[in-house]
Amino acid sequence: MSTADETLEKIKAQVEDETPDDITIASVSFEGPELVIYTPEAKEVATRDGIVRNLAQTLRKRINVRPTQDALVPKAEAEAIIEDTIPEDAGVQNLDFDGDTGEVFIEAEKPGRVIGRHGETLDQISASVGWTPEVVRTPPMESNTVSNVRNFLKQERNERREILERVGRQINRPKTADDDWVRLTTLGCCREVGRASFILSTPESRILIDCGDKPGAEGEVPYLQVPEALAAGPNSIDAVVLTHAHLDHSALIPILFKYGYDGPIYTTAPTRDLMGLLQLDYLDVAAKEGRAPPYESQQVRDALKHTIPLEFGNVTDIAPDIKLTMHNAGHILGSAVCHFHIGEGRYNVAFSGDIHYKDTRLLDGAVNDFPRVESLILESTYGGKNDYQTDQEDSERVLKRVINEAYEKEGKILIPAFAVGRSQELMLVLEEAMSSGDIPTMPVYLDGMIREATAIHTAYPEYLRESLRNRILYDDDNPFLAEQFQQVDGGEEMRQDIVDEEPAIILTTSGMVTGGPVMSWLRLLGGDPDNTMVFVGYQAEGTLGRQIQRGQDEITMSDKSGPRAERVSLKMDIETVDGFSGHADRQGLETFVETMHPRPEKVLCVHGDESSTNQLSSALYQKFNMRTFNPKNLETFRFV
Amino acid sequence: MSTADETLEKIKAQVEDETPDDITIASVSFEGPELVIYTPEAKEVATRDGIVRNLAQTLRKRINVRPTQDALVPKAEAEAIIEDTIPEDAGVQNLDFDGDTGEVFIEAEKPGRVIGRHGETLDQISASVGWTPEVVRTPPMESNTVSNVRNFLKQERNERREILERVGRQINRPKTADDDWVRLTTLGCCREVGRASFILSTPESRILIDCGDKPGAEGEVPYLQVPEALAAGPNSIDAVVLTHAHLDHSALIPILFKYGYDGPIYTTAPTRDLMGLLQLDYLDVAAKEGRAPPYESQQVRDALKHTIPLEFGNVTDIAPDIKLTMHNAGHILGSAVCHFHIGEGRYNVAFSGDIHYKDTRLLDGAVNDFPRVESLILESTYGGKNDYQTDQEDSERVLKRVINEAYEKEGKILIPAFAVGRSQELMLVLEEAMSSGDIPTMPVYLDGMIREATAIHTAYPEYLRESLRNRILYDDDNPFLAEQFQQVDGGEEMRQDIVDEEPAIILTTSGMVTGGPVMSWLRLLGGDPDNTMVFVGYQAEGTLGRQIQRGQDEITMSDKSGPRAERVSLKMDIETVDGFSGHADRQGLETFVETMHPRPEKVLCVHGDESSTNQLSSALYQKFNMRTFNPKNLETFRFV
Ligand SMILES: [Zn+2]
Ligand SMILES: [Zn+2]
Ligand SMILES: [Zn+2]
Ligand SMILES: [Zn+2]
Ligand SMILES: [Zn+2]
Repeated sequence: MSTADETLEKIKAQVEDETPDDITIASVSFEGPELVIYTPEAKEVATRDGIVRNLAQTLRKRINVRPTQDALVPKAEAEAIIEDTIPEDAGVQNLDFDGDTGEVFIEAEKPGRVIGRHGETLDQISASVGWTPEVVRTPPMESNTVSNVRNFLKQERNERREILERVGRQINRPKTADDDWVRLTTLGCCREVGRASFILSTPESRILIDCGDKPGAEGEVPYLQVPEALAAGPNSIDAVVLTHAHLDHSALIPILFKYGYDGPIYTTAPTRDLMGLLQLDYLDVAAKEGRAPPYESQQVRDALKHTIPLEFGNVTDIAPDIKLTMHNAGHILGSAVCHFHIGEGRYNVAFSGDIHYKDTRLLDGAVNDFPRVESLILESTYGGKNDYQTDQEDSERVLKRVINEAYEKEGKILIPAFAVGRSQELMLVLEEAMSSGDIPTMPVYLDGMIREATAIHTAYPEYLRESLRNRILYDDDNPFLAEQFQQVDGGEEMRQDIVDEEPAIILTTSGMVTGGPVMSWLRLLGGDPDNTMVFVGYQAEGTLGRQIQRGQDEITMSDKSGPRAERVSLKMDIETVDGFSGHADRQGLETFVETMHPRPEKVLCVHGDESSTNQLSSALYQKFNMRTFNPKNLETFRFV
Repeated sequence: MSTADETLEKIKAQVEDETPDDITIASVSFEGPELVIYTPEAKEVATRDGIVRNLAQTLRKRINVRPTQDALVPKAEAEAIIEDTIPEDAGVQNLDFDGDTGEVFIEAEKPGRVIGRHGETLDQISASVGWTPEVVRTPPMESNTVSNVRNFLKQERNERREILERVGRQINRPKTADDDWVRLTTLGCCREVGRASFILSTPESRILIDCGDKPGAEGEVPYLQVPEALAAGPNSIDAVVLTHAHLDHSALIPILFKYGYDGPIYTTAPTRDLMGLLQLDYLDVAAKEGRAPPYESQQVRDALKHTIPLEFGNVTDIAPDIKLTMHNAGHILGSAVCHFHIGEGRYNVAFSGDIHYKDTRLLDGAVNDFPRVESLILESTYGGKNDYQTDQEDSERVLKRVINEAYEKEGKILIPAFAVGRSQELMLVLEEAMSSGDIPTMPVYLDGMIREATAIHTAYPEYLRESLRNRILYDDDNPFLAEQFQQVDGGEEMRQDIVDEEPAIILTTSGMVTGGPVMSWLRLLGGDPDNTMVFVGYQAEGTLGRQIQRGQDEITMSDKSGPRAERVSLKMDIETVDGFSGHADRQGLETFVETMHPRPEKVLCVHGDESSTNQLSSALYQKFNMRTFNPKNLETFRFV
């Protein structure tokens, strides 16, 4: 009998001890970080007061109760009963039975109607069919990404179960080390923006946090080849934790599977989907630019298959001595501040990932309240001493003025923006400005991945700011579905038509004018002084966006499909509106640390240019008298 | 053809280019860090002006020229010629022909007579027999260690040649990394004295510096199991470099061979021999204390076999991008400050090992003059703010007074001392005091390993202080051979006889009264108030030496061979004479840094209690405005 089997035997005996005598426990098993209990009285266990809570407290594990096979009504029969029980207007789209877990996934347009008042309808279903109903919302906007991911995971259900069981055994392996230390190794993202990658290690466990690329420097990847990263084998790490989907944090995760990694990725569900979208796009871009991609789409699927989605606030065992809790980071959909609790109260480390401290229209501001925290790894993108930004309110006022002026000239307004996060924020600003009459209602064309990214946002309304969530969920007033938002899905012909029509706003990728549909728009709109280009995001040194912003009025666009380079004479109006960044500015970073509860002892400033990390590190030391560090890549810090 | 073979082909062509046309180059090969050139005209190449120097400069390698087989006179004939050529009074003990290298090792009591004026005799030998003569001194005191090591290496000559060739290929492998960094990882010896172990690494190469135990804490060994140490396999390190033989630096080196390491150990020849002696004793002690030894004597032999001895000042390639130069550290025989030159002028790191800054009777003070140095890893044993010690002159005066007082009482003087270093220093002090009449001439009994350690010292006179070396080599006045020094080789019976006789001094191990013959002496001498015990070395917390020094007058000595514990009532006089330490005191450490040339940018203070490393680090920062660090174990510092 393996040690994992022995552990399970012991747990089963404990579960039997702790449950009333009339409940039969058929078996227990690990499923990733959760403990699954199979019983013919699943419904009874799940609903009777305190049983599950008591078990969770005693076993210090998340508990999942499932019916045994003999408790399940046959599928065809169950299907009929379920369809009869759920009201017509719930808009049920699909029923999907998982015979192994006894779960039935009910996809519906209105999950609330499936659940019923106080869960009555669900209770009725599980009582009459034995299956455990799980409700899935039909996304209000169709997203290929979301449905592809869901279908793929359904199709890979069997392998996924094996992965989860293996991960569960790993997490619950007995602790062996008698030593006691906590260390952080920097594999990237120090004194630079990009290639985020860190290893948090103890004598028991090793966790890789993020694994991104460095925009504009394809050769500079995380130092995965050094001994403290993967030298002891790709499975010498227990888990990968991903703070958010941006490529500077996620791009190189699939390469781990190419190297043979076979363990879990912990992140939020929306990050999982956005990560898949962005990684596939990353491969596309590499192919288009003639670079050998570092991995194949197969490894993107591997990454999806190994992802264990976590909800904000859930404390999850990810290694024998490490618990992870994710909290909203306010940066993009699903972005998380990752809090690691090590040992039994031994040490606590929070990784900020990328954060936005204040609330925006799209997301709540970053969480900075934790049960305990000794060390903080803090992003420093705007950590420089002059990196203060305009308030969003002021920025919105400026944006509306710029749009009104352009509209009066009967021109088009071209806004390059990142597909994930900034585009949705702008859509909300534009929608409100139009409905309040601050700017005239006119078409807003979405080009590139923006529509798809927006659809993913609407598939996860619980991650959006409360007021927005309520509009989407309950008021049937989804601002992203406002009729002025129109997808550019007709290629160059449609773009030409748009140019020939009335004034309009065009939101398009890429955000730094480094490729993508914005290039077409520049060709079509650039020559007319009645048109206006508005920059709303950071334009990095070396990008075409930065050159235009600085006043360059003749640009050369090389056509990748042929040898000819085209010169475009820019006559359109160029405007910059500050304050829509997804990152906390210097003030936001300071306030995040100042109001953090509890106060961290140490702060390591990363994810910023050398001057930014340096200046933020000095400022935090001087203002708050904390021990601060400005790490280099490839260093190891010992916390305990 | 392997890349190493290609490299050799290229080098051979270069050698042919650079040598006069009348010289035939038969072949070239690597032998550890050296390049060996085989030629029928070996003598010609070796002696004709500038050939070897020119080759060494062009190839940037140490060059060894050897005759081809056809140039060698048959052994029997050569033996006769050599015996005829060397004058009788040279005291030739042995001739040893190595057919593979064409070397003949001539062991003689008076090497100078073998060499002849300006090397005339040697020249004559090589001209007439073709073999290259190498002169080895017959140790003036017979040392089992030295002769065992020499015999063992002779017997393993073939495997040793294989090892050297493999090491040579490793060193001369092409550089592959396009990255560029220098890092130091601490595996032990930080904020503690003991388990010295560091990894110096670049993208090309990884060097392990020292691998010791922690006295008094057997369980605390270097962190070899962390990924950055040996996770990528025992041969992921290119080389081991050993600063000196003390067990807190060398004890765990043989375990590397148990793990499968098969690479070189670079150290001085005396350190190699002392290391073998101390490691075998380490195994003995473990066995006697009933602990499972971490390795077998076979691995001690493996370590010897893989050792490549270096001379002070010789710049040696030890990896594709790392050159090592050892310099006298003044601490014990063969102890070295290790200087690493990385890349072509990229970075320079000096490891102090353990140092004594001032000259002593035995050794010159530590070298602190280097071509370049950016970072210094500095021992801090006496780095505490009050760790100033008496001058040796004053200490000697006190010691002589104590001895005279004891002599007047007609008692015995018991001095516990470390076998290596401190004992020899005391022997020199006592010998001079007796010959000058400062103390009466009386027997000085050497018990434990002291005599053997002394014999090793006399086998390497070139490592001793110049005046002492000259006395041993040329004046036939070896102070260690003074007749008052007598070995205790008769066990308890002899000890009892000594007790019953006239006043005498007893120098004995262990230095901190933690076992060994000093325990017998305490039993025999402790009860008589006419006897005196003199502490001359540091007594660590927790040792019996420390307890006695603090005034405890009844001690319990447990007999490992049985259950009975013996109580001894101490009535003997207890004295402490400071100032004979092998370590620089606080002043010495400061001066070492202050006068170091060039001035280092960074100093990492290690090998000291937490308060010592901390106080030294602060002091060096404040006084000399250097960047100083007080590292913890298991951290990684990036220098470049
Ligand atoms: Zn981001
Ligand atoms: Zn980022
Ligand atoms: Zn030492
Ligand atoms: Zn030492
Ligand atoms: Zn070997």
